[in-house]
Amino acid sequence: MTDQQYLEIAINQAKKGLGQTWQNPLVGAVIVKNGQILAKGYHHRFGENHAEIDAISHLKNEKEGTGATIYVTLEPCSHQGKTPPCVNKIIELGFKRVVIGQIDPNPLVAGKSVERLKQHNIQVTNLDNSESLNLAYNFYFQNQRPLITLKYAMSLDGKINQKDGYRTMLTGKDTFQDTQKLRQMNQAILIGENTLKVDDPKLTIRSNPAFPPFRIVLIHNAQKLDLQQAIFQSKGPIYILTNHKNEQVLPENIHVLVDEVWTPRKIIDFLTQQGIQSLLIEGGSHIHANFVKSNLVDNLIVYIAPKLIGGTGLPSIWGPGISEMMNFELKQITPLGSDIKISAKRVY
Amino acid sequence: MTDQQYLEIAINQAKKGLGQTWQNPLVGAVIVKNGQILAKGYHHRFGENHAEIDAISHLKNEKEGTGATIYVTLEPCSHQGKTPPCVNKIIELGFKRVVIGQIDPNPLVAGKSVERLKQHNIQVTNLDNSESLNLAYNFYFQNQRPLITLKYAMSLDGKINQKDGYRTMLTGKDTFQDTQKLRQMNQAILIGENTLKVDDPKLTIRSNPAFPPFRIVLIHNAQKLDLQQAIFQSKGPIYILTNHKNEQVLPENIHVLVDEVWTPRKIIDFLTQQGIQSLLIEGGSHIHANFVKSNLVDNLIVYIAPKLIGGTGLPSIWGPGISEMMNFELKQITPLGSDIKISAKRVY
Repeated sequence: MTDQQYLEIAINQAKKGLGQTWQNPLVGAVIVKNGQILAKGYHHRFGENHAEIDAISHLKNEKEGTGATIYVTLEPCSHQGKTPPCVNKIIELGFKRVVIGQIDPNPLVAGKSVERLKQHNIQVTNLDNSESLNLAYNFYFQNQRPLITLKYAMSLDGKINQKDGYRTMLTGKDTFQDTQKLRQMNQAILIGENTLKVDDPKLTIRSNPAFPPFRIVLIHNAQKLDLQQAIFQSKGPIYILTNHKNEQVLPENIHVLVDEVWTPRKIIDFLTQQGIQSLLIEGGSHIHANFVKSNLVDNLIVYIAPKLIGGTGLPSIWGPGISEMMNFELKQITPLGSDIKISAKRVY
Repeated sequence: MTDQQYLEIAINQAKKGLGQTWQNPLVGAVIVKNGQILAKGYHHRFGENHAEIDAISHLKNEKEGTGATIYVTLEPCSHQGKTPPCVNKIIELGFKRVVIGQIDPNPLVAGKSVERLKQHNIQVTNLDNSESLNLAYNFYFQNQRPLITLKYAMSLDGKINQKDGYRTMLTGKDTFQDTQKLRQMNQAILIGENTLKVDDPKLTIRSNPAFPPFRIVLIHNAQKLDLQQAIFQSKGPIYILTNHKNEQVLPENIHVLVDEVWTPRKIIDFLTQQGIQSLLIEGGSHIHANFVKSNLVDNLIVYIAPKLIGGTGLPSIWGPGISEMMNFELKQITPLGSDIKISAKRVY
């Protein structure tokens, strides 16, 4: 087998952690000696063992590592995080060679581990081809802000609602399930107060209630929240961004942050400080328009229902305008029940 | 070969007339005797021979028709039109059997020919499966109005223009070519005065300039037309629907029709009187809204360009509203260069 083939096994290992590693990247590892795979491992869950340590734990005996090659999808860490640095263990066990899928863009690592391994005469090869495994993680460190996905469901005439303040059921069951997956792939979800009022969403992931994303609601005046709303019935963190102080006694998971104007830029700066690597914007159309105007949209997911809402419906993006159109590249067009899903990526 | 297989050959013959038969249906015919195809034919062009007569003209000798079976996609005509009734010729030549694809919905025929053939002891079989060959023709006679297709090109946020009065180039070359084909499949095209002013279209078919459709422009005040506009440079018929009399000396192909209010229903009644079986509506968004509100949309063709126009763009359908959404069934989703084409059919 080639290095590439062993790395692909490690990539498939990595994917087993999907939706469980929170702000940590997905990482997989394979240990090979004399053409034999001795052990495989991956980062199972935020706070648990890194992939290299997981793989080493599956060796019959740690001494098997001596003279072996470890394939790992991401440069091993060299800093003390929730677990000790992996690079120390690799050196300690006497691995001969390390093949990595990419350099870790996190400035705490960023090539430092490769240097340390080389200093200990361990051969390092970077295949530089597993970036797609952790798009948001890489984007966050390369751009110092989260990867932003704008998502909406619209009619064939581009409307999201029949009228303001009234919920329109547009899309079907398959789209609902796809939206759940999309939430699981994002660390934060943002909605506005109209969407909160009209849709009354929980913004949780039904299949994974133990792992709710970071939920953010923009509310002009949060002096008095309606704590009966569905979102407040769950325990995950909720951030209310507002320009009026709240006067209620609130449950511990609800945080109210007051600022004069919460521009998209300020919201993104706040999320960046919190280490949030990916944001899903889920309405309404005025928030969409504000993020488009602020040039803060990287990916677009549009679900289209085979309906017409007609001449007075609320357009999917409505509010402040832009003078130049934004260009996208279509990534995928998928039929979903009787709906269509279009995935597109910003191009400059 | 089965009856069905012979009829399919006739259907393929019929398709050769596509875009050339104007308000006449596409019709194909095959003459078979003793399991041998003796001749094939189709209706080539409006005003020319019907398919049966075309097939008969390809027999070595008309006497070969005696005792033969003729497969024809549509019930033969029994009335004197631009050509003599086909049914007479079939009886005269002594055909033994006639297999048809469907009854002609035109009340001038509508089963009368089948009756006459039977009276002459000619066996008739109706396979009743070639309706899709002439959707608009069938629709027109079944519903006493043209089949209406609403077509627009929009951004991923459902807008057709950056702002009113300013042309936005959204879609690419493949979509342009597809639009040309769509025009060729419709007998009339309708636009409004904004679209005329902003786009300055010819509304002709580049590949078939000798066969322009019936072009209709809704202009509030047509007192003084700008005869420099591209549409007025071509010779096909143009109907200006307006509520102010025109005061110019106009070329013969331009007809100005004055009415107090040209509602969608009045426009459709006018087209029905003219025998127009299919209408393509090509903008702008207010005309779209009016036709949607009047419940006069049968098919929808939406081209989507991978762009965002943003919060102040003109929605694809904008104006009078509807209280209940209109439902469609997706027929086809086709990538067209970097655009997407969605074809949908109204469902009730």
